[in-house]
Amino acid sequence: MLPIFIFAPIGSLLSLLFAFFLSKTTKKFDEGTDMMRQIAQAVREGARAYLKRQYRVVVVIFLIVFAVLLILSFCKLLPALVPFIFLTGGFFSALSGFIGMTQATNSSARTANAARTSLNSALRVAFAAGGVMGFVVVGLSLLDLSFWYFLLNWVYRTQPIGERMLIITQTLVCYGMGASFQALFARVGGGIFTKAADVGADLVGKVEANIPEDDPRNPATIADNVGDNVGDVAGMGADLYESYVGSIVAAMALAYAAGLGSKGIILPLILAAAGVLSSVLGTFLVRTKEEASQHALLLAVRKGIWAAGIVMAIVSAVIMKLILPEHFNFYWPILIGLACGVIIGYSTEFFTSDNYRPTRAIAAATKTGPATVILEGISVGMLSIVPPIVFVALAIFAAYYIPGGAARPAYGLFGVAIAAVGMLSTLGITLATDAYGPVADNAGGNAQMANLPAEIRTRTDALDAIGNTTAATGKGFAIGSAALTVLALIAAYRSQIAMAFPDFNFRITNPQVIIGLFLGAMMPFLFCSRTIKAVGRTAGYIVLEVRRQFKEITGLLEGKVRPDYAQTVRLCTVAAQKEMIVPALLVVVVPIATGILLGPNGVIGLLVGALITGFALALMMANSGGAWDNAKKYIEKGNLGGKGSDEHKASVVGDTVGDPFKDTAGPSLNILIKLMSTVSIVFAGFILRFTLFK
Amino acid sequence: MLPIFIFAPIGSLLSLLFAFFLSKTTKKFDEGTDMMRQIAQAVREGARAYLKRQYRVVVVIFLIVFAVLLILSFCKLLPALVPFIFLTGGFFSALSGFIGMTQATNSSARTANAARTSLNSALRVAFAAGGVMGFVVVGLSLLDLSFWYFLLNWVYRTQPIGERMLIITQTLVCYGMGASFQALFARVGGGIFTKAADVGADLVGKVEANIPEDDPRNPATIADNVGDNVGDVAGMGADLYESYVGSIVAAMALAYAAGLGSKGIILPLILAAAGVLSSVLGTFLVRTKEEASQHALLLAVRKGIWAAGIVMAIVSAVIMKLILPEHFNFYWPILIGLACGVIIGYSTEFFTSDNYRPTRAIAAATKTGPATVILEGISVGMLSIVPPIVFVALAIFAAYYIPGGAARPAYGLFGVAIAAVGMLSTLGITLATDAYGPVADNAGGNAQMANLPAEIRTRTDALDAIGNTTAATGKGFAIGSAALTVLALIAAYRSQIAMAFPDFNFRITNPQVIIGLFLGAMMPFLFCSRTIKAVGRTAGYIVLEVRRQFKEITGLLEGKVRPDYAQTVRLCTVAAQKEMIVPALLVVVVPIATGILLGPNGVIGLLVGALITGFALALMMANSGGAWDNAKKYIEKGNLGGKGSDEHKASVVGDTVGDPFKDTAGPSLNILIKLMSTVSIVFAGFILRFTLFK
Repeated sequence: MLPIFIFAPIGSLLSLLFAFFLSKTTKKFDEGTDMMRQIAQAVREGARAYLKRQYRVVVVIFLIVFAVLLILSFCKLLPALVPFIFLTGGFFSALSGFIGMTQATNSSARTANAARTSLNSALRVAFAAGGVMGFVVVGLSLLDLSFWYFLLNWVYRTQPIGERMLIITQTLVCYGMGASFQALFARVGGGIFTKAADVGADLVGKVEANIPEDDPRNPATIADNVGDNVGDVAGMGADLYESYVGSIVAAMALAYAAGLGSKGIILPLILAAAGVLSSVLGTFLVRTKEEASQHALLLAVRKGIWAAGIVMAIVSAVIMKLILPEHFNFYWPILIGLACGVIIGYSTEFFTSDNYRPTRAIAAATKTGPATVILEGISVGMLSIVPPIVFVALAIFAAYYIPGGAARPAYGLFGVAIAAVGMLSTLGITLATDAYGPVADNAGGNAQMANLPAEIRTRTDALDAIGNTTAATGKGFAIGSAALTVLALIAAYRSQIAMAFPDFNFRITNPQVIIGLFLGAMMPFLFCSRTIKAVGRTAGYIVLEVRRQFKEITGLLEGKVRPDYAQTVRLCTVAAQKEMIVPALLVVVVPIATGILLGPNGVIGLLVGALITGFALALMMANSGGAWDNAKKYIEKGNLGGKGSDEHKASVVGDTVGDPFKDTAGPSLNILIKLMSTVSIVFAGFILRFTLFK
Repeated sequence: MLPIFIFAPIGSLLSLLFAFFLSKTTKKFDEGTDMMRQIAQAVREGARAYLKRQYRVVVVIFLIVFAVLLILSFCKLLPALVPFIFLTGGFFSALSGFIGMTQATNSSARTANAARTSLNSALRVAFAAGGVMGFVVVGLSLLDLSFWYFLLNWVYRTQPIGERMLIITQTLVCYGMGASFQALFARVGGGIFTKAADVGADLVGKVEANIPEDDPRNPATIADNVGDNVGDVAGMGADLYESYVGSIVAAMALAYAAGLGSKGIILPLILAAAGVLSSVLGTFLVRTKEEASQHALLLAVRKGIWAAGIVMAIVSAVIMKLILPEHFNFYWPILIGLACGVIIGYSTEFFTSDNYRPTRAIAAATKTGPATVILEGISVGMLSIVPPIVFVALAIFAAYYIPGGAARPAYGLFGVAIAAVGMLSTLGITLATDAYGPVADNAGGNAQMANLPAEIRTRTDALDAIGNTTAATGKGFAIGSAALTVLALIAAYRSQIAMAFPDFNFRITNPQVIIGLFLGAMMPFLFCSRTIKAVGRTAGYIVLEVRRQFKEITGLLEGKVRPDYAQTVRLCTVAAQKEMIVPALLVVVVPIATGILLGPNGVIGLLVGALITGFALALMMANSGGAWDNAKKYIEKGNLGGKGSDEHKASVVGDTVGDPFKDTAGPSLNILIKLMSTVSIVFAGFILRFTLFK
């Protein structure tokens, strides 16, 4: 093994240590008044109860899949260690979700309390809490991958280097499936939970009982706050854990296929380690003057991300010169990937921020009622997919051809994979800016419920507003990186099939490919239909439960007695997990059934069809949702009649439609396309054996 | 030339004669009172004014494209007669739109007047009027194709049969581009016009001035009625003219590529002629007892379609036995195509009729306000794409493999193309059921404006309700047939490239193909975004104009003076045409630019990406829209609180969002995917010469 490999575990330890340091930083702050503590405790308990229940379901699913994988590996249809690497993939993803969420729920009261001092202190607590999630995700995945790379090298030490690398990369690619599975439950289940709680709380609380949002008398209000944590912290973390791991292992497999040797194979790991360093340096820059404006705070966050990107650009050039000087051309895809992530972020901001025309146009459409708000929002969402798709297309083009893909396609494919690694390399800090949002949101909820003075709530609102912007760009980033990762996974799948059966041509006019493409295009729509309906159905249960508590618990509406928060959380948890069954089955059964009925041609059609349609639909839903949300906030700032006007009511309709778009259905498509790809890779050998089309 | 070819012109003449006969039938009916005549006259004038203006724009565009094609054919990049066949394709499509619309506008008052006698008489007038459109479309396209086939055979008579057939099929395939171009303006321009007028009329009339729908005091009411004709009659006709022609010429080209000789090449024409016969026989069955119920009327329409399908199934078996007995296996794809059309129709009905659960669920969602109505409708629309996609996939599979596509791919591709021909063969009657809808709708408007007694309006409403059901299934049929046609066109494109450059592999993992697929997936979203916005913008102009007339024309609101209907129509026409510029450019420029920058691999990716995403999105939009519309009507029947309730108001929001979904954006996607395909075929030679990727 190459000595330079040592940088991978070092990077991982750096990441984990830094996460520990950030966590310690937040602990220095106080949780505030008794009331604030109690509320934070309730959210913590709710979130933990949710995770406990979710993990129980996940464990059962994992044991079933583990058994299937064991059988497949006994039948020599999979490398021997795949079932075990699958387990650790799921375990570490779940662990980072748990740590990140614990940290987030520990920090909301602290953030609210810090807001009593200044906006900047509050930002520091919230951002540090988000950073724990970011660096734990990066650290744990890098640790586990390093461990497996080391272990596999040792296990297969007697094999000749070529075959050893083949079996190592094939095993590692299956690592992603464990992370994917766990992400399915975290992201989709969390997404259903969070929006069902939100919608349910609003429908009875705001609309029927006429009490404000986040009012402690509302039995669903804790569930709403829990939802932010399980959906936007644990869910988002699992989603990006998967992308991060997927991009790295796909690049490793493609490095083998491109004949780049063990240097090429460990390159993605080393780049990831460099990304940790860059992110740590960037994080130190996220600070500002004590009484800074909201705009200055946003700039501070931006500065951190930019600095991390620039450091990464420099460090990776050095790494390429050191490790693969004869293939320095692969440096450019890394740079392209980094740039592409930034551009998608800016494009998302343009379409969803009320500083620009699209969101303003939605706000203006409120003058003619809710229908035109919906039409305008959908139109904006549909238009918003153009820049990301064009830039991803350009990135694919450049990443493929600059390293010489025209003459050697395997180089081109590795170029695309390494672009995905580049894009995700600074995940530590980008995920921090993302996970910081729900902490700020919860801090606002805490301040409201604990009856803190209005000016504190104003500060947490300002914090939340920045969080919305960074969350929107983070969502664009998550989708963009998922698309590039899936592309790399599809290429890895193809090269795996090609090694076994070189005569598959994967021609697009082949009927199996075409049928696969049609079915693939269908999947994101089917998946969204299910998840949107799931939110509605679960919200319906919440409504009934909240009504029941209002009726049966005497003194509740007068504020004399506390509602039974835990019961609402429990109900929402059970319902969300139940709604997962069909989507989970779909994601696993469809690629395998397609493989058996239509062969690898059909599978690759399915994956590509789902990728392109899912990418477009996910962007549209995320951006429509974000724009509707901000159009409503724009009106609430006092524009176009302000709060309570007919315009405001019309904008609320848009926001309510947008919530499951952007927080449930849209993000769940990332998981759909990634999990279908990893399932296809893991079951490739099985399908080749049993397919009707060889 | 084979003597059996004579059946093609015979079929065309039969179709035209039958259209003439149907037109005569409607003339026997009276237009009713003076008031009814005047209103019909105003709609007629408005529709004619719209078409005149549209044709003026189309003529300019056609001359430009004609000049470009002339240059290309001088440079030997196109067969010599392509520019001329392009012109006639556009001309005959426009002519059939003009005839169909004239007939429709001539029949609304007659239908309303016949409703004074009985529901059945009204059905007969309206259905005969719709039939004129159906049989004129089929007759003129078959006439023109026969003429060109004959002419080309004569012009190239000195060439050896093989080369002659190649050049004939290559020229004929370009015929579709003329029809496509004209369809773009008719369908998309008409779609923008109709919904802008509708929304504009409602926003000021119903909402602001508080006068009922179709009130003669509303200056936009005539424009609204004109819109039904230009969008749903002329636009739908042009759309299906294009599909009909496209499927036939693509099948002819693929018959050549499959080496089926001149018998195979004329087979699609003969099948189309047989379809005319079947449709005529079916049409005679569309009648019922004088005082039949609404349900009995729907059954009568269904009976006609079923009879036409069964006759077609029998006749085409005979034709196959006579013309290609050694390839009788191609009979099965014809049958599959016929069946697939019926199944898609039923699936559409399930998702959009208030007899079934999905639409009822949308109606139930009104209880929790407009936002849940929108979410439920989108969820229904997304789910509704599953059966059509699965059945189209099955149809492709069977149509490809049954005729032996596994061993000879060219046979499989011809199988898919002939399935499209089979699906569209009975277009005469299916289009009749479709074009009958707007006639019934206009009859209702006429009855309302002419102050006919309430029971007459009830009858025209019943007629309209059947029209809504048939229009919804017709839309599903239009999308399904467009998908199969485009698939055949893509196969024709591929075989054209393969003849010139056999080394293109069109592998789906090729970066050019992948980038093409991403861009292709983007196009339907971009197109929908533009058309939805165009409706909103144009409706805004209407609102201003109607407000102006209400203010400036004294005595208007009191009903003493007539509004200036013509000015509203003029304004709407100009605006709709202006909105066409960008979409028209996109559809032409993107495939050519993709071809130059990415080569034929990129083009085929683009076409396939647009096909699969456009198919899914078009189905979703059409079915969401139809379901919202019928959920509203379900409430208006007195369910869930009935008219005027909060539930009804929520359902109106759904309907308003659904209108541009189902009548503008959704249908325009059919044109998008077909026109991009024909443009790619026509410019294939040009692109091969100038592309950067060979």
